[in-house]
Amino acid sequence: MDVKEIVKGLDTYVPGRSQDEIASEFNLNKNEIIKLGSNESPWGSSKKAINTIKENLDLINRYPETDLKELKELIADYCNLKKENVIVSGDGADEIIDLLAKTFINPGDEFIVPLPTYTYYEFSLKPYGAVPVYGKWNLNTNRLDLDSILDNISNKTKIIFLCSPNNPTGAVILKKDIEEILNKTDCLVVVDEAYSEYCKESNQDLIKKYSNILILRTMSKALGLAGLRIGYGLSNPKIIEYMHRVKPVFSLTRPSNIAAIETFKDKEFIKYSITKGIESKNYLYDELSKIPKLKTFKSESNFILVRTKKTGLTATQLSLKLLKKGVIVRDCSSFKGLDEYWIRVSIGTLDDDERFITILKDVLTED
Amino acid sequence: MDVKEIVKGLDTYVPGRSQDEIASEFNLNKNEIIKLGSNESPWGSSKKAINTIKENLDLINRYPETDLKELKELIADYCNLKKENVIVSGDGADEIIDLLAKTFINPGDEFIVPLPTYTYYEFSLKPYGAVPVYGKWNLNTNRLDLDSILDNISNKTKIIFLCSPNNPTGAVILKKDIEEILNKTDCLVVVDEAYSEYCKESNQDLIKKYSNILILRTMSKALGLAGLRIGYGLSNPKIIEYMHRVKPVFSLTRPSNIAAIETFKDKEFIKYSITKGIESKNYLYDELSKIPKLKTFKSESNFILVRTKKTGLTATQLSLKLLKKGVIVRDCSSFKGLDEYWIRVSIGTLDDDERFITILKDVLTED
Repeated sequence: MDVKEIVKGLDTYVPGRSQDEIASEFNLNKNEIIKLGSNESPWGSSKKAINTIKENLDLINRYPETDLKELKELIADYCNLKKENVIVSGDGADEIIDLLAKTFINPGDEFIVPLPTYTYYEFSLKPYGAVPVYGKWNLNTNRLDLDSILDNISNKTKIIFLCSPNNPTGAVILKKDIEEILNKTDCLVVVDEAYSEYCKESNQDLIKKYSNILILRTMSKALGLAGLRIGYGLSNPKIIEYMHRVKPVFSLTRPSNIAAIETFKDKEFIKYSITKGIESKNYLYDELSKIPKLKTFKSESNFILVRTKKTGLTATQLSLKLLKKGVIVRDCSSFKGLDEYWIRVSIGTLDDDERFITILKDVLTED
Repeated sequence: MDVKEIVKGLDTYVPGRSQDEIASEFNLNKNEIIKLGSNESPWGSSKKAINTIKENLDLINRYPETDLKELKELIADYCNLKKENVIVSGDGADEIIDLLAKTFINPGDEFIVPLPTYTYYEFSLKPYGAVPVYGKWNLNTNRLDLDSILDNISNKTKIIFLCSPNNPTGAVILKKDIEEILNKTDCLVVVDEAYSEYCKESNQDLIKKYSNILILRTMSKALGLAGLRIGYGLSNPKIIEYMHRVKPVFSLTRPSNIAAIETFKDKEFIKYSITKGIESKNYLYDELSKIPKLKTFKSESNFILVRTKKTGLTATQLSLKLLKKGVIVRDCSSFKGLDEYWIRVSIGTLDDDERFITILKDVLTED
């Protein structure tokens, strides 16, 4: 009995730490911790979704539905597409990424990711024997380095992952750049639009124009359901059908399905959550930009990338100082393509944002 | 862009049908349908679990915990093992099966399953390029044909799946047979104990004795949480650690984690659910055995396999007749290793059971 060679070479598993452990270590009141580390929406979930979950909890002893017809129709409607363009997952967009590997990747195949970007593509594809090839995000212009993608396409390339707006840099990839890539290759171009609600434009219209694009979406951000793990993929019906062949049958829990349905019906909540999110992001951008030692990146998302180099503090040092005062931000040291001087700050309520800015200023003038 | 050859060869995806569609097609009242098709527990879930979910729904906008420390400790306690022996999944035991493929399977590797058995092993492993090798379940003795496993072990065998109690035949695999297999091979022996709560004996003690056994468990059966998709694997810490390297980070939803914790604490509910389940199974066995045209199999599980041949009705014909009268049973025609004359009947409440037996007798004397 032996595990795969690839698995032996992966990082050792170190369990994450719970909020309770963090609160206890730093002597914090768990309920007063300001969470600006995970790109969640701080305005909660649709009340209608919460109420409908409550009303249906007497059915959690029964297996979930598998066809998800109503939900797929609502998603199709939300995205101006058809039900046959939609696949729904029960572990956020992460499950769709895994399905892409199952559907397309043979050992030795290559995939392209520009660095820095969302790290899960690589985490998810590596166990399938896929080989990462790195493109570049231009940190000076905060734009995708288009040539770094085009130049790396080979006959081994199976998938190109483009996160737009890009995590952690915040800016979108221009639609004309995405189209240029689609025109230059037959391989699958995955556009991860986890944060699309916060930006002006989606690329969902490209599905009607190109047969090799798949769009990833999630309900974990603006739609306020990170704890229920609902994601979906949008593509042409042929790709969607192939992915359904290998998709886990029951992965979306009953409460998740119910909450997803009610949330898509709750147009008012969606509008509210997006408006508040953009308001918070604008506030944070303005305030962070006023702090001279920080370099702040424009964002069309629900987070802001910040360069800490001039403060003399690494991301790890600064985020520890903030944590001791009850603020969680994302230390970006683990993002390939970034050095040790970057943090990412997610939107909070305006109250959270103000407290965070005050604490940050304190921390930066401490020494 | 091209999908994998293996995926092209898989069955085309046909969406399942919802309860609503079935109710509408057969003009049934959805709430009066008797569900004896999915091996669920009809006695619902722990009230404590349901209440604690309700109290925490204001947090579903936040990502789930990733360490799952409390849940792992409760599972370890429940199974008389240590936290390091436990891995928890968010799509039932099915996710653990997928993790096993990710951890162990290279294309071309073989796995052994006795037929008939749970079909998901093959569904899950095939996209990884694994090759099924079939052993046999002896339908005359309702026991595993041990030699059919031992004789098929080769140097290509990576995993042997043993479902005990076996789905759909209901009987356990004798511990001495499992030990004989463990002694004869170094490859991973997976014992799927999804239904272990209903039988007298678990094999969890073998984890301390053998380094190549992994036990699959689920909260979808006796523990009454099928709609929340909670599974777990038990093995030696080394295998568990390797599997954690490739495990999806957030797959267990927040409500699922909460419900799982509260259910394991609710010993009284667990005892009640198991007692009622065994009572129902015994009632069904006794009543079904009295019907001369049916051959009924002894079960240590929450379902009973029934041979319909002497009725002159195939499983498909009989289950359609039952469905028209509001009863769902499992037509086993899709199980490899069974012909078209088998149905599987899951436990219901005693009231459901009585109604089912009456309807079944009606149906069988109809013509």
